[in-house]
Amino acid sequence: MSTLPDAFLRALSESFPADFCTRDPDELQELGRDWTRVYAPAPSAVVLPRSTDEVARFLALCNQHRVPVVPSGGRTGLAGGAVAKSGEVVLSLRRMNRIGEVDLLGNTVRVQAGAVTEAVHQHCAAHGLTWPVDFASRGSSQIGGNISTNAGGVKVIRYGPTRSWVLGLQVVTAQGEVLELNGALEKNNTGPDLRQLFIGSEGTLGVITEATLKLTRIPKKLDVFLFAVPDIAAVLRLFREARRAPITLSAYEFFTDRCLLRVQRHRGLRSPFDAPSGCYVLIETEGGDPETMEAWLGTLFERGLVTDGTLAQSLQQAQELWALREAISESLSATGLPHKNDIALPIAALEAFCAELDAVFAARYPGWEICLFGHIGDGNLHVNVMKPDGMSKEEFLQHTHAADAALFELVQKHHGSVSAEHGIGLLKKDALSWSRSPAELAMMRTLKRALDPNNILNPGKIFDL
Amino acid sequence: MSTLPDAFLRALSESFPADFCTRDPDELQELGRDWTRVYAPAPSAVVLPRSTDEVARFLALCNQHRVPVVPSGGRTGLAGGAVAKSGEVVLSLRRMNRIGEVDLLGNTVRVQAGAVTEAVHQHCAAHGLTWPVDFASRGSSQIGGNISTNAGGVKVIRYGPTRSWVLGLQVVTAQGEVLELNGALEKNNTGPDLRQLFIGSEGTLGVITEATLKLTRIPKKLDVFLFAVPDIAAVLRLFREARRAPITLSAYEFFTDRCLLRVQRHRGLRSPFDAPSGCYVLIETEGGDPETMEAWLGTLFERGLVTDGTLAQSLQQAQELWALREAISESLSATGLPHKNDIALPIAALEAFCAELDAVFAARYPGWEICLFGHIGDGNLHVNVMKPDGMSKEEFLQHTHAADAALFELVQKHHGSVSAEHGIGLLKKDALSWSRSPAELAMMRTLKRALDPNNILNPGKIFDL
Repeated sequence: MSTLPDAFLRALSESFPADFCTRDPDELQELGRDWTRVYAPAPSAVVLPRSTDEVARFLALCNQHRVPVVPSGGRTGLAGGAVAKSGEVVLSLRRMNRIGEVDLLGNTVRVQAGAVTEAVHQHCAAHGLTWPVDFASRGSSQIGGNISTNAGGVKVIRYGPTRSWVLGLQVVTAQGEVLELNGALEKNNTGPDLRQLFIGSEGTLGVITEATLKLTRIPKKLDVFLFAVPDIAAVLRLFREARRAPITLSAYEFFTDRCLLRVQRHRGLRSPFDAPSGCYVLIETEGGDPETMEAWLGTLFERGLVTDGTLAQSLQQAQELWALREAISESLSATGLPHKNDIALPIAALEAFCAELDAVFAARYPGWEICLFGHIGDGNLHVNVMKPDGMSKEEFLQHTHAADAALFELVQKHHGSVSAEHGIGLLKKDALSWSRSPAELAMMRTLKRALDPNNILNPGKIFDL
Repeated sequence: MSTLPDAFLRALSESFPADFCTRDPDELQELGRDWTRVYAPAPSAVVLPRSTDEVARFLALCNQHRVPVVPSGGRTGLAGGAVAKSGEVVLSLRRMNRIGEVDLLGNTVRVQAGAVTEAVHQHCAAHGLTWPVDFASRGSSQIGGNISTNAGGVKVIRYGPTRSWVLGLQVVTAQGEVLELNGALEKNNTGPDLRQLFIGSEGTLGVITEATLKLTRIPKKLDVFLFAVPDIAAVLRLFREARRAPITLSAYEFFTDRCLLRVQRHRGLRSPFDAPSGCYVLIETEGGDPETMEAWLGTLFERGLVTDGTLAQSLQQAQELWALREAISESLSATGLPHKNDIALPIAALEAFCAELDAVFAARYPGWEICLFGHIGDGNLHVNVMKPDGMSKEEFLQHTHAADAALFELVQKHHGSVSAEHGIGLLKKDALSWSRSPAELAMMRTLKRALDPNNILNPGKIFDL
């Protein structure tokens, strides 16, 4: 266990409640990790504030004593951003989970950073409203974590990312100062938008303590289609068509047959089609009338854009179709050891990129199992390489590390991102320069040094100073 | 005319084309101003680059010689942000007006910063696409200016502000370094989003040279309604109703009878109603079918939510209704001398704020003419006080300056913004602290010093260092 300065520990015990800080080894293990399992958690302590005031006084203390802090929400991150592996103090927002009254005229809700995503959804649903940021880990992820990672998810194609749904932010700076940013304003052009510094910067520039979330009406009617298509080129042809069609796209997801086989193995779920197919596309549309939807389905068959397809006829069927997609991540991890990548390409570059991806796989992973899936309508692919049976974990990691370079080189060639939604954290630090120029990295360092000169906020995450 | 260092002038003539720089007095007057007429333009020179490379080399030169620069676009700003009043060099993006091919799969278009807004709209319309940022000055405003001011306009309620429609930015820093930010990516979580530093910071942190704009499909069908209602409380009751109705709101604008009278005087336009009314509301909806729209109109009458109302029966009628709203700014300036404010309130605070506004007016402007209008659906009010006949301009400005304090105090009480869309520039610097805390101002100064240590980019705009 890391040594914390005596004066720091004394101040902690004098100025904060008895249960503010824990050094219990089990809690340190649990709260020092996130969903990545690569790093051994090793925080020196965990603090669990109940108020913004406690967060502010605590950060001021850390800044004074140069104690590094890892802000921690639901710990569902996939890049190690919330991992404390070097004796940092974990600042868990877990106790700060209050959700305010829904503002029914402004369509907003004020929440503390530790509010759980699903709880916010349920709280607002009673009024026919929702915060349209949604993904599989909704039952554990917290609002503060969502905002600090600019969480994506399945609804970005319709609603945009988290960034578009945050009206106001309350943030505590490295110096322990509380900033109230933008309140509940839809419009505010009074200089640089400081909220944006904290959205997506993974807790390295400030700690989010509260947020005013922008809400939208829950769509009255959603239709869910599943299509079977031969390959990724067909996935993209169907996407072109969907973009032009008289429909409001609410989701456009795809997965390969390898993913479906693993979902079958782990969860017993099957596709509704008789014959297997190279790829599957899940499309969700909003507000369409039944005749238009059935007609559209018909034209897709007539024009040979799909091999098979089905339109869910009930809420249950819709949920079953979604389950095929949402079970993939968990199924891959449960049935093998996946090496994950989460990349994005400009939509216009997808076809060329995917065509060249096969060549990369053939060269680097001849005969290996590759599970591809994701939010392809946003240009976002999840690339999961499964460890071959019989190969040691160490050999696997060496191989995938080298192969990643080839993948990232291809991503860079097409002006893509090495991390579409999951962030950089610890896991993708080495890859950052494939998507960010030296000039950008210099500016990010400049920002970090300006806002956190003592480097106490999540040091070593995203990049090193 | 301000003195520019000899070495600087020598380098200009040696390293740039002959027509790069002008010191012609008429051009200096014209290009040193924006739509505010409060400040006497007094630039020392104007430069008109043709390429990003010229912008970069020029800024590096300015940085080296500490020559202040005012980035300039369409000069339609309303806060003096593009005014050069202290011998700065105006950097006009006018010549950099190229618009690229529309990317029909990704729904994007790449433009240079000097591209005119309306030209971009027309270029994309051929493909059934548009960049959904729109306002009256579209024929003169440029993309770079729109982005650097996070322009609002009439479609924010449906599409959000400019910030939501910028995928990639090419920016030149104060040091003359070119940053390519985010390309054409819908998703990219690779550290802090540097684009956001330059959107809405009014040219004080970097100069935008190119942008990749996100486009959307032009709505197939828009319906335009005009309603007569007695007062602002009725405007807000109708808004509550419109938010709940089974319609997609594309605009929600209001204006008072005083505005309409001035529009009649200046442009001869009249409302379609027989009787005058205290307030008018223009609603635009997207994608509704005629029966639903007529039925909704009927319920509004039945429930006494409107005194009168009409639904445009043709494109021409729709344009005539819009003209009543869009002609207001110009009509006020043409028929008198307005003192303008552009404020925003949280939507939930609008009713209370408007009720108290009357008291402020009664105390500060008893008997004066006040023209209220704006994007009330975003919480945004344009408050225009007309100079009484016979009062001198000087006395008028003294009076309004004092009254502004009362207005801003009320805005602050309701957690509003002293500048919803127009920015701070020069005009609203004194008001900034009504909407930004000392801690926020300190952080903005920290950012400025970090990115532009020699304070050459639009110095003295938004705040002083």
